[in-house]
Amino acid sequence: MELSAMNAVASQMKVRIAKSALVDAVLQVLKAVSSKTTIPILTGIKVSTDQEGMTLTGSNSDITISVRIPKQVDDKEQVIVEKTGDIVLPGRIFGDIVRKLPGEQVDLMVNDRFQTIICSGQAKFQLNGLDPEEYPRLPKLPREQEFTMPADLLKSIIRQTVFAVATNEARGVLTGVQWQLEDGILTCVATDSHRLSRRQVQVEGSEDLRLKNVVIPGKSMNELAKTLADSSGYVDMIVSDNQILVKNKHLEFYSRLLEGVYPDTNRVIPKNGETVLVTSTKELLQSVERASLITREGRDNVIKWTINDGKVQVTSTAQDIGSVMEQVNAEVTGPDLSISFNARYMMEALRSFDCESIRIQFTGMMTPFIIQPATEDDSLHLIVPIRTR
Amino acid sequence: MELSAMNAVASQMKVRIAKSALVDAVLQVLKAVSSKTTIPILTGIKVSTDQEGMTLTGSNSDITISVRIPKQVDDKEQVIVEKTGDIVLPGRIFGDIVRKLPGEQVDLMVNDRFQTIICSGQAKFQLNGLDPEEYPRLPKLPREQEFTMPADLLKSIIRQTVFAVATNEARGVLTGVQWQLEDGILTCVATDSHRLSRRQVQVEGSEDLRLKNVVIPGKSMNELAKTLADSSGYVDMIVSDNQILVKNKHLEFYSRLLEGVYPDTNRVIPKNGETVLVTSTKELLQSVERASLITREGRDNVIKWTINDGKVQVTSTAQDIGSVMEQVNAEVTGPDLSISFNARYMMEALRSFDCESIRIQFTGMMTPFIIQPATEDDSLHLIVPIRTR
Repeated sequence: MELSAMNAVASQMKVRIAKSALVDAVLQVLKAVSSKTTIPILTGIKVSTDQEGMTLTGSNSDITISVRIPKQVDDKEQVIVEKTGDIVLPGRIFGDIVRKLPGEQVDLMVNDRFQTIICSGQAKFQLNGLDPEEYPRLPKLPREQEFTMPADLLKSIIRQTVFAVATNEARGVLTGVQWQLEDGILTCVATDSHRLSRRQVQVEGSEDLRLKNVVIPGKSMNELAKTLADSSGYVDMIVSDNQILVKNKHLEFYSRLLEGVYPDTNRVIPKNGETVLVTSTKELLQSVERASLITREGRDNVIKWTINDGKVQVTSTAQDIGSVMEQVNAEVTGPDLSISFNARYMMEALRSFDCESIRIQFTGMMTPFIIQPATEDDSLHLIVPIRTR
Repeated sequence: MELSAMNAVASQMKVRIAKSALVDAVLQVLKAVSSKTTIPILTGIKVSTDQEGMTLTGSNSDITISVRIPKQVDDKEQVIVEKTGDIVLPGRIFGDIVRKLPGEQVDLMVNDRFQTIICSGQAKFQLNGLDPEEYPRLPKLPREQEFTMPADLLKSIIRQTVFAVATNEARGVLTGVQWQLEDGILTCVATDSHRLSRRQVQVEGSEDLRLKNVVIPGKSMNELAKTLADSSGYVDMIVSDNQILVKNKHLEFYSRLLEGVYPDTNRVIPKNGETVLVTSTKELLQSVERASLITREGRDNVIKWTINDGKVQVTSTAQDIGSVMEQVNAEVTGPDLSISFNARYMMEALRSFDCESIRIQFTGMMTPFIIQPATEDDSLHLIVPIRTR
């Protein structure tokens, strides 16, 4: 690979890069770039080149994603640096351009008025860049509060908790997922005060670390799950007072933390059930989905379970539309029970389980009930019932 | 298959039907059902059962789709009719329900207050229906003006013309595709007055039929293409004064026609080019797509071609953003030329071609130019250039 094709004018940055690596990195950092931001420089992607490769960074007021493209990966040359430097390029347009470039290689050259030439194949773009000095610096987090877990486990924690956060921004800490670490056990909790999700996992090698009131915005959690979608292996989590950094070999994901004290949720979770139900996750979910078809137009999307020996009868009725009735076989112990609740909460909880059968414990028709895998206690969903006539 | 499971109360309709056939038919007719209509009965699907099977119908003010489910298909029993009858069921909810039903069979029973019971597997729905007498009757079209063509050809005609219709409803006949039939040649034209698409096909056995001012709404054309997506074989087209019916064995698609006289477009199409360009459809399209990345934010999305011996130079510039320049190899005959135009019109035209190379004929920088397959004349796109500084 030679750079001879590039213009010899004095430049602030001059680099040749493999298109596929550039496309992957740009698509990753674009997840953090919003075109609606009120801070113009944040509509851009920061491109930094040093002797060892290139780093792309995208950010909004909540999250920052930074991706490293090293010079070489597995003996394959990815970046040839002729001159190091920095530039901020308009994010969305730069992303559209690199995806559509015709060649396998991309030549990038920046001159001293932030004008950037992008050449690939027979196409030559000239983009007006922005001053990289204006781009916010990444925070340096002290690595005192650090622990490690598999990326797949982190994604599963997010998937099983984040749907229960409050979506109304006015609800403060409840729009986030609370992380607590004590005695090597990480407990993640989300609740909008009508339902609650909790997942607990053992985190090896963190017995001395204690985290109490770390609350990560639900939106950041969703973006993190997307960002890690194709990642396997381990990720490091570094927690500071107001930021969390999740990183692996080539990726850094920063999120702000929410201020405020997360409520103590332990006391709302009932310890034992009077009526206990064990049944197929899939069959129960499908019956709730069908019942919800009738009621989902309504404000509360209420469906009713009538639980007695050997079965759950699922019913729902909506005036003007009609009604539905269905039976699901179940192992039931304890007294018969009728209970009404929001079908959406139940569907979201049941969909988050990977297990074939689930156990539901009730303490009465007006008190919260909990849903767990039939044979494990590490994940839990709680739903507050609805009073009906 | 027995109906013994069904309730024996006197009913207005009683039928058992294979779920897969019902799901397919409901999804087809739902394409014509809008939940936003001001005519309540049209939010419903009409279900009609006779001794030979079932017919479902959905309609809005523009199109009507009717699907027939015959009693038997290939020796497979699809509908068992115990009592014939009609009912109108809420369209979207009925569609959601049948898709989610647990069993292979669906029992449908209507009582005399339009209440409808839907049973499948262990699920039992009760839906409030509407009076089928209130549902509009399908028009009976005289079969005098009728011709036939392969469904695939019809879909290709739609795909190659409909994108050029005017999208502003105020533009009357220009929001439709004009169909003309003369001497066995069907000519379909769409134009929004800035660009024009025309497709001509030979229609066998229609030499005696002459159609002059048949204008089908663009939206109906798009819905028709979707409705026929999985259809092969032949379709019959039946044209009346204010309706067109497209039908095959189990499907009827009605559309209203637009009123008003479609302009004569023949005179705007230049007969010969002075500068003629022949090149790869794909390479030219990709260069226009890249150039458009820079200008598409602007009002006119203008790009410029500079055509001379052996090549087209594609350029575009947007203030504040940047510029792009690219060369595409081409066979050029006639004088050099510079011409500017709307990149979107060019992309839509080029994407509609199936051929590998295309021929573009220019008569000057301010006059319309035409794009055709390099070796055929049956399809044509015309674009009006844009005056630039």
